[in-house]
Amino acid sequence: MKDPKAPIGVFDSGVGGLTVLKALRRLLPREEFLYFGDTARVPYGGKPLVMVRRFAWEIAGFLLRQGVKAIVVACNTASSAALPDLAQDLSVPVFGVLEPVAKEARAFQKVGLIGTQATVESGAYARLLPLAWARACPLFVPLVEEGLWDDPVALLVARHYLEDAPKDLEALILGCTHYPFLKKTLEKALPGVRLLDSAEATAKEVAQGLRREGLLNPAGRGQVIHLVTGDPEAYRALAERLGERVEEVHRVSLEEL
Amino acid sequence: MKDPKAPIGVFDSGVGGLTVLKALRRLLPREEFLYFGDTARVPYGGKPLVMVRRFAWEIAGFLLRQGVKAIVVACNTASSAALPDLAQDLSVPVFGVLEPVAKEARAFQKVGLIGTQATVESGAYARLLPLAWARACPLFVPLVEEGLWDDPVALLVARHYLEDAPKDLEALILGCTHYPFLKKTLEKALPGVRLLDSAEATAKEVAQGLRREGLLNPAGRGQVIHLVTGDPEAYRALAERLGERVEEVHRVSLEEL
Repeated sequence: MKDPKAPIGVFDSGVGGLTVLKALRRLLPREEFLYFGDTARVPYGGKPLVMVRRFAWEIAGFLLRQGVKAIVVACNTASSAALPDLAQDLSVPVFGVLEPVAKEARAFQKVGLIGTQATVESGAYARLLPLAWARACPLFVPLVEEGLWDDPVALLVARHYLEDAPKDLEALILGCTHYPFLKKTLEKALPGVRLLDSAEATAKEVAQGLRREGLLNPAGRGQVIHLVTGDPEAYRALAERLGERVEEVHRVSLEEL
Repeated sequence: MKDPKAPIGVFDSGVGGLTVLKALRRLLPREEFLYFGDTARVPYGGKPLVMVRRFAWEIAGFLLRQGVKAIVVACNTASSAALPDLAQDLSVPVFGVLEPVAKEARAFQKVGLIGTQATVESGAYARLLPLAWARACPLFVPLVEEGLWDDPVALLVARHYLEDAPKDLEALILGCTHYPFLKKTLEKALPGVRLLDSAEATAKEVAQGLRREGLLNPAGRGQVIHLVTGDPEAYRALAERLGERVEEVHRVSLEEL
């Protein structure tokens, strides 16, 4: 039995998972978090699925060695590649980002999906609900990682990717945790379409899951320690541009995974 | 002494080095080539330099085990990270892409540099010649890898990166082997500035070096075998969009490196 006072491990290829972390902290202010950003190997989205699966296992193993009580795979590509295996084979609760948003999306008739190439090609969303349209958007992650989400460049790129979306789409799944940063831009490119992101839905699922398992922290202080495989200062600067204050960040070398 | 009939190994993070390969084949039509694209780990440009150095050594070792007689590091980031060490410590001639283009650039007074973050921050070009301006352009590699070099998106991104370039720049070093694909776009964004790329200059240096060492192939058929760490069919499709016909391509798993 895990210690309810232990931190929750959250991981992503880079800064995208911070959208999920923010929702988690809002809903679970007493939890401590270890946020792991694999910034040396970002982006995951164009890599072979078997490779991303290996990354996910490496990082999950590392987080378990740090004593986390639960793991949130805050990355659609890694969730597509490594779930449900990871959830079945680890001794702590593991939460992905696909199922929670798919559950919301089922309320709509015509649902589209944007995501990384690996996520779209994995067919993981298509196994959860019928999709009217899907499109891989490889430039969105580098755009966000460079902080250009509100730039005219982002709008032009968004229009490029969305030009053949059906006119009567009701909802669009933002199938990558980086994409919520592009929300304003996507609303301009696709007015009137409901944008569904994993952050809130996943946070609710995690809160319910921890309560069910008796794993809610009764008295934590809501602290976050960030761990990154790339340069910590570059990460801190980018995370802060994204509105996430980084108190403590450490470098983890890939050899430690 | 190496066998002059052995192939030349050329490597890059992805398809960028194909610009160098094309120039090499034009100048050396009797040589055989092994082209290695590390497509599972592309892009290199945002990764820590020590990591890129390790990749370069892994790939060079792999190519030597395939029996190459010389190695061309057809990637500015890897050249910045791993040269001159690689050239000093290997038993075959090793050619990078920085010195040849820097030599050309010295004919101009006001020279600018665009490249990946790792290349610009390494200071490797600044050690070879005085630079009037330098700028990292992280989106250019994903733009090219996605085949969008002639799209209006590319022009907008180029204008974004070049907006603070000095008005009196005479020449601009394309400090990444992916960038020649963006030449037309860059000419529109920066009219009247001479664009210098490594492909031709590096090919000349390689031809001279092989002649000096007595390593020119007297009777090869100019064949190329492509080796990639990512998906071979995705690579073939992209390379062909870039104008490189791929007869033979094989997957190399990272474990073999």
